[in-house]
Amino acid sequence: MTESLNQVLAQADRAMPESLERLFALLRIPSISAQPRHAQDCRDAAEWLSDELASLGFAARVAETPGHPMVVAHDDSAPHGPHVLFYGHYDVQPTDPAALWHSDPFRPAIVKEADGREVIVARGASDDKGQLMTFIEACRAWKRVHGALPLKVSIIVEGEEESGGANLLPFLKAHADELKADVAMICDTGMPNRTTPAITTGLRGLVGEEVTIDCATHDLHSGMYGNAARNPIELLCGILGKVRDAEGRVTLPGFYDGVTDAPAAVRAQWKTLFPDDAETLAPVGLSVAAGERGYTAVEQIWSRPTFEINGISGGYEDDGFKTVLPARAMAKVSFRLVPGQDPARVREAFRHYVRESLPADARVTFASHGASSGFAVPQDGPYLKPALAALSDEWNVPAVSIGSGGSIPVVAELKEALGVDSLLIGFAQSDDRIHSPNEQYGLDSFHKGVRSWVRVLDRLATAR
Amino acid sequence: MTESLNQVLAQADRAMPESLERLFALLRIPSISAQPRHAQDCRDAAEWLSDELASLGFAARVAETPGHPMVVAHDDSAPHGPHVLFYGHYDVQPTDPAALWHSDPFRPAIVKEADGREVIVARGASDDKGQLMTFIEACRAWKRVHGALPLKVSIIVEGEEESGGANLLPFLKAHADELKADVAMICDTGMPNRTTPAITTGLRGLVGEEVTIDCATHDLHSGMYGNAARNPIELLCGILGKVRDAEGRVTLPGFYDGVTDAPAAVRAQWKTLFPDDAETLAPVGLSVAAGERGYTAVEQIWSRPTFEINGISGGYEDDGFKTVLPARAMAKVSFRLVPGQDPARVREAFRHYVRESLPADARVTFASHGASSGFAVPQDGPYLKPALAALSDEWNVPAVSIGSGGSIPVVAELKEALGVDSLLIGFAQSDDRIHSPNEQYGLDSFHKGVRSWVRVLDRLATAR
Repeated sequence: MTESLNQVLAQADRAMPESLERLFALLRIPSISAQPRHAQDCRDAAEWLSDELASLGFAARVAETPGHPMVVAHDDSAPHGPHVLFYGHYDVQPTDPAALWHSDPFRPAIVKEADGREVIVARGASDDKGQLMTFIEACRAWKRVHGALPLKVSIIVEGEEESGGANLLPFLKAHADELKADVAMICDTGMPNRTTPAITTGLRGLVGEEVTIDCATHDLHSGMYGNAARNPIELLCGILGKVRDAEGRVTLPGFYDGVTDAPAAVRAQWKTLFPDDAETLAPVGLSVAAGERGYTAVEQIWSRPTFEINGISGGYEDDGFKTVLPARAMAKVSFRLVPGQDPARVREAFRHYVRESLPADARVTFASHGASSGFAVPQDGPYLKPALAALSDEWNVPAVSIGSGGSIPVVAELKEALGVDSLLIGFAQSDDRIHSPNEQYGLDSFHKGVRSWVRVLDRLATAR
Repeated sequence: MTESLNQVLAQADRAMPESLERLFALLRIPSISAQPRHAQDCRDAAEWLSDELASLGFAARVAETPGHPMVVAHDDSAPHGPHVLFYGHYDVQPTDPAALWHSDPFRPAIVKEADGREVIVARGASDDKGQLMTFIEACRAWKRVHGALPLKVSIIVEGEEESGGANLLPFLKAHADELKADVAMICDTGMPNRTTPAITTGLRGLVGEEVTIDCATHDLHSGMYGNAARNPIELLCGILGKVRDAEGRVTLPGFYDGVTDAPAAVRAQWKTLFPDDAETLAPVGLSVAAGERGYTAVEQIWSRPTFEINGISGGYEDDGFKTVLPARAMAKVSFRLVPGQDPARVREAFRHYVRESLPADARVTFASHGASSGFAVPQDGPYLKPALAALSDEWNVPAVSIGSGGSIPVVAELKEALGVDSLLIGFAQSDDRIHSPNEQYGLDSFHKGVRSWVRVLDRLATAR
């Protein structure tokens, strides 16, 4: 550890009380992007951040969009090194149901848990204000000690991540020249446990699809027609029930074309971290990995594509019973994809399978609910190894590459608009209750998060 | 045709204007049993009927139940012959949606259809006031001409057929000695077309069942858990989609034990009446019989047991898309049964199949929604042939035995409480729109219905 770095870490430690005060000030702004009555609060949060970044010497501004504004800031005090674009979001989820909160969602409180761990409780504590501020406070420590950052940093903070984020991609495209960087950094993900730092190097894509099957012209009496008239619910069940086989594999032809396993070293890390599926699934009341045989639960979620039925509806669903033979049945389904799979091909294979499965007297209509590709950071790219090394230094545990079963649209949008790859580094814990009442962020997440970014900036400054 | 019968038929013809007036008076009473605000109307209808029957010389009364009252009447003016118990119901369905009626549902109107056929339009015109009155007016004609009926007749008219009918069976049991008869007659069914009279000799039974599958303790994010966590909708689809095979046959072991085909002569009649499945199913927009291969659509509905999914629900069913992996899925299903099948065994076979199909991490709960056996009038019983002959005489077309895909609970209740078999003779047409706006009953159904009953009573008087 160089003396230079040491000084910055020491400064970050010393400044922790004021860092927390600043985070609390941001948490007090109820910047709920989905609720129009909080529009001014969103703007207040943007301005607060812009002022903060300006006070650090960033060229910072609040930039308008058709929705809530962006915060854009640049610092080119660094003499050399790659150009990093940091992304975060200042907007938060709504707070309902209000009755389940133990304290005001916008009066942040430090609460000591049963095991002695202290957490900040507030809406946005973890997602994403607390995480976002770990990066800004790391920049502050660098600036305080050295008067400059170790590399060129741009920051964009969005205000609509929790409400569709429709304005981000157009904004990125319109400001591509200004925002283009060598690598993007996102602090909106988590760690696999309390002690192991991680970079999320794989995200699954999504193909969302709505299937509607129509048979008779109107709902029929199941006594009067049952047996002879096609039942669209039965057809839908028969069709959707066969998309995965008994081994958990998707049966659509070509579905696994281009799909590869995670690197052996990464799989080995995951097996060490999550050796027991029963333990992995216990928090949600399950015990056995339901996907493809031969993969652990974590592998199935982080690195394997799959099919889900997200909703189904048809006939009489209310209390009691109705002897109806319905005219229509509907399901909402999705495929989670991994790199190598083409969303358009998967959608077409599904639609083809459904059409081919239909007997006479049944008609199907499809509606698309979005498509995105899976994403993977190459394990041999120029920034991953230094970033992992920085995290390992801070946490005294080898940092790991993990996956995420979900999609984070900004990653694809940064790639599309700016051609830049992202490193997803975050310090959230699985019990942070993001989007739920009593959202929290550990003091350790925040403090070691700041220190982690101090080190990541240091390592990346000399990368390439 | 005897002169005696001829006189009664002529009287029925002459009296038709007054017969219609009486029917209209009954149709004007809004006896909607499901709506508490119409309780007095139900009582008014019962009293009106009791008065009518008393005026014919029946010993008639309004009999209390915990719900709407029954009408009970007896006439033993006949010197000999079997004892007939006639059943009908004076209550009607609600009239909503009101906007779709072309005239006041309780201001009966005679409307001429495009083909010149005249119909009575009113709630209850067909179901069951019009049909019920065909029998009473036939009795009136007999009484007017001969001062007596040709056989002993008891009548019970219920007021809760459209709203559960929970009080009928207890009432029948409590009054079994009074109501026991040689044969029951019910006028609440229809004809296979405008010109062919029919007796419904088969009714399917029903096993209603609700299946709920639970997996995780709460709804999950399909990105965070999809693949590794059991999806209860997928399980439900896989299970329900295999209850019938590609040939339309129910796959539960033992399901067809005891099931026999309709008699060859009856099947031949049906094939003559309904030679073309495409034509049979055209009114509901379908073209191909979806049930067991080797049976026509009408055979599948009237004489073959089957499985239906009546409703299904789970996950996100509203507009748009939600990447939820739900904790629960539910379906309402039913089996239609034919004579020879035991409802309890069918239910148990289904539950066993579902339980055996469940993998780890899935729990199932069942709720029963009723059970009734299939019913069949023996083709060689003492009353069927004379009744068919009477109908053939009136309509100048051989009367046929038909089936009904649905259940008519009173048939089983009459059997259980009184040990009596029923003959289901009715004159409704498939376009009578029962339970729907603009319910109607053909003037021809009513007039020839009265004449048919005149003849049936005559034939039965000398049966045995």
